[in-house]
Amino acid sequence: MTSEEIRQEVLKMGAQARAASYELAKLSTAQKNAILLAMADALEARRAEILEANDLDIAAAEENGLTSAMVDRLKLTPERIAAIAQGIREVAALHDPVGEVIREWTRPNGIRIEKKRTPIGVIGIIFESRPNVTADAAVLCFKTGNATILRGGKEAIHSNRAIAAALQDGGEPQGLPSHSIQLIPFTDRESVRYLAEMDEYLDLIIPRGGAGLIETVVSLARMPVIKHYDGICHTYVDRAADLEMAKAIAVNAKTQKPSVCNTMETLLIDRAVADEFAPVIAAAMREKGVELRGDEDFIALAGPEQEVKPATDDDWTTEYLDLILSVRVVDDLDAAIGHINHYGSHHSDCIVTSDEAAAERFLNEIDSATVFWNASTRFSDGGEFGFGAEIGISTDKLHARGPMALEELTSYKYRIYGEGQIRG
Amino acid sequence: MTSEEIRQEVLKMGAQARAASYELAKLSTAQKNAILLAMADALEARRAEILEANDLDIAAAEENGLTSAMVDRLKLTPERIAAIAQGIREVAALHDPVGEVIREWTRPNGIRIEKKRTPIGVIGIIFESRPNVTADAAVLCFKTGNATILRGGKEAIHSNRAIAAALQDGGEPQGLPSHSIQLIPFTDRESVRYLAEMDEYLDLIIPRGGAGLIETVVSLARMPVIKHYDGICHTYVDRAADLEMAKAIAVNAKTQKPSVCNTMETLLIDRAVADEFAPVIAAAMREKGVELRGDEDFIALAGPEQEVKPATDDDWTTEYLDLILSVRVVDDLDAAIGHINHYGSHHSDCIVTSDEAAAERFLNEIDSATVFWNASTRFSDGGEFGFGAEIGISTDKLHARGPMALEELTSYKYRIYGEGQIRG
Repeated sequence: MTSEEIRQEVLKMGAQARAASYELAKLSTAQKNAILLAMADALEARRAEILEANDLDIAAAEENGLTSAMVDRLKLTPERIAAIAQGIREVAALHDPVGEVIREWTRPNGIRIEKKRTPIGVIGIIFESRPNVTADAAVLCFKTGNATILRGGKEAIHSNRAIAAALQDGGEPQGLPSHSIQLIPFTDRESVRYLAEMDEYLDLIIPRGGAGLIETVVSLARMPVIKHYDGICHTYVDRAADLEMAKAIAVNAKTQKPSVCNTMETLLIDRAVADEFAPVIAAAMREKGVELRGDEDFIALAGPEQEVKPATDDDWTTEYLDLILSVRVVDDLDAAIGHINHYGSHHSDCIVTSDEAAAERFLNEIDSATVFWNASTRFSDGGEFGFGAEIGISTDKLHARGPMALEELTSYKYRIYGEGQIRG
Repeated sequence: MTSEEIRQEVLKMGAQARAASYELAKLSTAQKNAILLAMADALEARRAEILEANDLDIAAAEENGLTSAMVDRLKLTPERIAAIAQGIREVAALHDPVGEVIREWTRPNGIRIEKKRTPIGVIGIIFESRPNVTADAAVLCFKTGNATILRGGKEAIHSNRAIAAALQDGGEPQGLPSHSIQLIPFTDRESVRYLAEMDEYLDLIIPRGGAGLIETVVSLARMPVIKHYDGICHTYVDRAADLEMAKAIAVNAKTQKPSVCNTMETLLIDRAVADEFAPVIAAAMREKGVELRGDEDFIALAGPEQEVKPATDDDWTTEYLDLILSVRVVDDLDAAIGHINHYGSHHSDCIVTSDEAAAERFLNEIDSATVFWNASTRFSDGGEFGFGAEIGISTDKLHARGPMALEELTSYKYRIYGEGQIRG
């Protein structure tokens, strides 16, 4: 396809999605839930077809020498398809925020104003290899009455096509409007550009993937982008911390699931308790197989037997996603706040202390989406918040910050009820 | 200045603004209000200095042959300065949304979650000629704890500098952090680019001006942009309308203040009442000096004595901001909704009807920020909504939609209170 043909195809999909969005806005919650259940059934009914498509992706991946970890992320099995279908049924059971009245008031001239939640309209999702994202993202957007245009990576193109078709075709008999869920059927790089430029049809674009993908989308996009950047998360152990609690929280935050964005990457220790806490936490982390990288003070206090490597400035801005921890001794709360606001990624940060005033300052002054007092940063998660589902954890401050769920996939409008009022 | 020098200067201002934003987040509402009152006093105390600066802008404007309307927009007088100061005092009296707890809940594991309003951080405002915007925008951003970087047009550069300095210097003795309000002191075009690219320091950028300015910012910006595009507002007169009410609303929506974005630009008339309503509304509009541009049906029904000109397709997408109205006869409610969603700008649209089902469909299916049932679109306004102040009317759907006031200048964070919880 020529670049112009790709552009025309993407624009056509945009116009179709916009038309679908107007039909979607008319559906009731009950209708949407019935459609979701039909989608889940269709996914299971088409299992053989989806697995066949997935085989093509797996064969290509092996031919192209992808690592076994990458192949495993691509791989669908009957169990994984069942899990995706089950996830859709769970979304059907969630509360639908669309139609909620956020606020309602009457003005002295008698006009009544209702601020009411609506779908956003058309959402573009650009994602990398895992085919389950096709269903997860499309289904959350649909539950909130939005049309989606999905653009997945080329590694999963056959699987993605089969899943998107199952969702759209499966929903239609229950009243799903045509083109509610569209997958760009080709993976040329230009399709990302044309999608990101198409602000007449796309109200929002969400890149789900690594920093490179997000960066590309940010530099091209003309519509709002919600970004899910790295989590450089911190735990600060204050002078007034219960050090047993601090150890438990820090070990949990680092080791319970090191590969995810709400894992601690840097531990900060108040100098006033560093000589007591440094050797204890060093030993506890090493016991869990954590590689330690410390500043000079921590290296000295932990003792040579802990084999702490010297941290460089890069360590303070690195999301290891691995059993590696950087550790710094700081003079006081101010220094901790300064370090976190400067080097952190404004994602999730914790203070361990029994001093309420120190905690209040930390919660207030740390400029992050989620701030913790005496709990592991691993709780920064839509599921743990009780949201039931999450499309990601936003590192933005506009519209959606932190765990992003159904409510963040909605907009609102003002509905005004008058009796002939005119402005004087 | 070289382009690189401009870039360095803008980056320096960005870093200063970020530092200021952290200090601003610590201020209480009482402190902020005291600072606002001091700013208002400083503006009046420096009246002579501001008027002198303004004289330089006026002299340059006259030398450059600006129209008298443009010169008038630039012109400051003792009365206008007093009005700006009064506006600041009114902002001091408004409710501060920062610190509000939006929602609060406790999870089964005992962690308590508080979703709390915070400042956004650093906001860039790019605006055109009117110097009062310097104060209006900076003060609303400050009230909500944000640092601002202002970039005004070159026509008002001396006035803008004097006003920004009065606000910053006037607030400092009351505790305003350094660099809370900064004006880019030069007006090279590159400064817009560097501001829009500086996403490490700017959390939001708001262009206040014409479509050309907004377009430039959208194409350059790497951070969220809130856009205040045109208002192509409609009134639809349904078959079940009280035609006297319809006439009053339509005349008000078109003629009460034609130069603003919530003014009606297109009138749609249901065919079922068009032969009765067309001649009546044509005469009423003509009496108010409105030039009419109609489709064939409206021209025929209004009668030749109304001198209705034929509307072209461009008329349906033009924001006249003048005593000009385009009129179309449509077959029914569906056709009206189709026209508005297709040609409109998703700003403010009204149905006049006594049929509740028709009104409900219109309010639900029109994809606009504000939708009216039996009231003039001129009420689409922060002041009329009771917001007390407004920074503009957003035509976006993310974060802020419709009249944008203090609440829309805030973000939020999640504050988590634990007692040592770790994730299992």
